[in-house]
Amino acid sequence: MARIVVTVMLKPEILDPQGAAVRGALTRLGLSGVSDVRQGKQFVIDLDGALDSEREMVLTKLAGELLANPVIEDYQLRVED
Amino acid sequence: MARIVVTVMLKPEILDPQGAAVRGALTRLGLSGVSDVRQGKQFVIDLDGALDSEREMVLTKLAGELLANPVIEDYQLRVED
Repeated sequence: MARIVVTVMLKPEILDPQGAAVRGALTRLGLSGVSDVRQGKQFVIDLDGALDSEREMVLTKLAGELLANPVIEDYQLRVED
Repeated sequence: MARIVVTVMLKPEILDPQGAAVRGALTRLGLSGVSDVRQGKQFVIDLDGALDSEREMVLTKLAGELLANPVIEDYQLRVED
């Protein structure tokens, strides 16, 4: 079994109002020195069997088309085991 | 500067319809052998200065109260640098 974690974050130049709200709340609730908060998504994908190169190619393609919006978001794949 | 990544995932016993929808879409779009997909949130928090033990305590507490809903979600803190 292979576990792949895809994280999707807004591109740095895109405003992140949710992250800004969390930043304000953290500061208000007593955490000092918060300079920035960005909020993103995480997908934990479990596959039967190993992650061969063909499946990795398909998954990388789908991560960029289905899981992330390439206009405003960046994504990263990480293989865990 | 310290960077802390907080990931928030639904507890394993809580149904995840978004994850199930992504699983269906990945399979339909050509990725074979997807056994499970879970969707969660990620917060990337940048702090000025180092993460001392007091700030880590405050952040851990707030992660469990503000960022995650402890009734249905688990959270993890990871320090990056």
